[in-house]
Amino acid sequence: MPEASKLRAAEAVAALDIGGTKTAAALVTRQGGIVHRVTAATPGRAGASAVLDTAAGLVDQLRARSAGAPIGALGVGSAGVIDSRTGRVLSATDVLTGWAGTDLRSNLHQRLGLPVTVINDVHAHALGEARHGIAAGYEAVLFIAVGTGIGASFVIGSTVLTGAHSAAGHAGHQPSPYAGSLPCTCGGQGHLEAIASGPGLADEYARRTGRPVDDLRSVAARAEDGDATATDVILLGGAAVGSAVGGLVNLLDPDAVVIGGGVTGLGELWWQALRHAVRRETLPSLDEVPVLASALGSDAPLLGAASLAWEALA
Amino acid sequence: MPEASKLRAAEAVAALDIGGTKTAAALVTRQGGIVHRVTAATPGRAGASAVLDTAAGLVDQLRARSAGAPIGALGVGSAGVIDSRTGRVLSATDVLTGWAGTDLRSNLHQRLGLPVTVINDVHAHALGEARHGIAAGYEAVLFIAVGTGIGASFVIGSTVLTGAHSAAGHAGHQPSPYAGSLPCTCGGQGHLEAIASGPGLADEYARRTGRPVDDLRSVAARAEDGDATATDVILLGGAAVGSAVGGLVNLLDPDAVVIGGGVTGLGELWWQALRHAVRRETLPSLDEVPVLASALGSDAPLLGAASLAWEALA
Repeated sequence: MPEASKLRAAEAVAALDIGGTKTAAALVTRQGGIVHRVTAATPGRAGASAVLDTAAGLVDQLRARSAGAPIGALGVGSAGVIDSRTGRVLSATDVLTGWAGTDLRSNLHQRLGLPVTVINDVHAHALGEARHGIAAGYEAVLFIAVGTGIGASFVIGSTVLTGAHSAAGHAGHQPSPYAGSLPCTCGGQGHLEAIASGPGLADEYARRTGRPVDDLRSVAARAEDGDATATDVILLGGAAVGSAVGGLVNLLDPDAVVIGGGVTGLGELWWQALRHAVRRETLPSLDEVPVLASALGSDAPLLGAASLAWEALA
Repeated sequence: MPEASKLRAAEAVAALDIGGTKTAAALVTRQGGIVHRVTAATPGRAGASAVLDTAAGLVDQLRARSAGAPIGALGVGSAGVIDSRTGRVLSATDVLTGWAGTDLRSNLHQRLGLPVTVINDVHAHALGEARHGIAAGYEAVLFIAVGTGIGASFVIGSTVLTGAHSAAGHAGHQPSPYAGSLPCTCGGQGHLEAIASGPGLADEYARRTGRPVDDLRSVAARAEDGDATATDVILLGGAAVGSAVGGLVNLLDPDAVVIGGGVTGLGELWWQALRHAVRRETLPSLDEVPVLASALGSDAPLLGAASLAWEALA
């Protein structure tokens, strides 16, 4: 089997992280070392073919840089609900027009001639931290990503729980005592995401002050300038996420919790409110479960996606 | 190895379900058939030795009835937080005085001379339904037990998620928008169990009417007699549990949800409120996840505990 032995001799795999605004690619060694890294804007409004062309183009750039060293496979982390068994996008938000229904595995295989594994980007991020990052060595890891939306991933023994309909991880769509009856992007009401996501917190500031803000960065800047309402909103966001995380710790009893996503950039004020709320909810026997900050940043989904590609080659 | 082959030839295993008020025992075939069934009051206030004597006595009764047919092992489901790896009780409520710290495996092995497996009773119930009951054939099953407390068990591919500290399943200790700042048995506030457990609903009725009630059965009786407040409290209970379950469906994406426990006996009114609330929370792609009533009743924990004993013999 010359093909298989060639694959096993691969020195690196390619990884893709296809997000709503940015697509990143990297060559990754079996040990999780990143050899090359390239990025491009995601042409999300131009349709699935344009997004796939951009993604494949980045992998071609990596190949050109790899100077002939064999690339054994491609691991993809992508926005949207992904069926990892078929490599298809089941659903996605409007940020990626026409993404739902795309057969990522076949399309990228045809464009690149590599075996392709595909997983949702939040799951990829969690796997990256669990296998190579801040949560390496922990058996069961609950990852929460707080950004434009709020997602989660539960990694048990290095396997991601993707769910019966590939929909596991929608942690933002839990009822939150902090959210009242606020409308949620899912069509529901009172969900965690409606109050504690980046847009949720920006909206809350606007409701409280009557002054619309562009985004959460504006709220953060006002808090730094001494705006007490902005500070209150940041504390509210940390507490809302922490309260939900504490409840999930009581349910799932993980070895560690990892928190990532853009909203974590709000800094120490947000983190303190989060940690305090986690401890307020957790049972005494679970008070010591570590709550860690994601450490690999934008490399995490690349390393997670790459690890699945390596697994497929094994 | 005469011992091992003798075990493999076992025609039945013994199962124990040690609860706060009642202990049940049964002989169970590999296929999940119950051959004999005996019960006794649990002498919960008399200490661990008395509880173990009662439990072992029930197994001896079963042996006497089995007419010499070999009993290969003992599977135990017990109240309390149980470390299944060591067979020890890590913690328990006051209903079982001195239960915390008891080495169930060693003590029952010494008393009965059988290999012993031990698991928490809610997990045993979930396993029973997943392997032999209403959820047989489903890959990932979320079980919620609503009674004096509110517990859960997540069974994936026939394996129970017991957690890093054997504490997984404390679903009652999640923040609930229905619970306000009500004090919870765990020392926290605003948890689901504080409002939606049996005692929680009885207390809510008493708060609303100023009339204390003995227990939830009194509230149910008053609802049947046309007491509108009693009806409201029952609807509230179903909605609070359903809302939490809907959020957990969005997070875990199970193949099926099973609901059991004494509070389910409130009947159709409670169930309708629960199902409505689940659907209000779930994402459109998860609207069809079945929400099933536990079907095996008090046999479920016996069958679940027995299935682990059979597994240990395999």
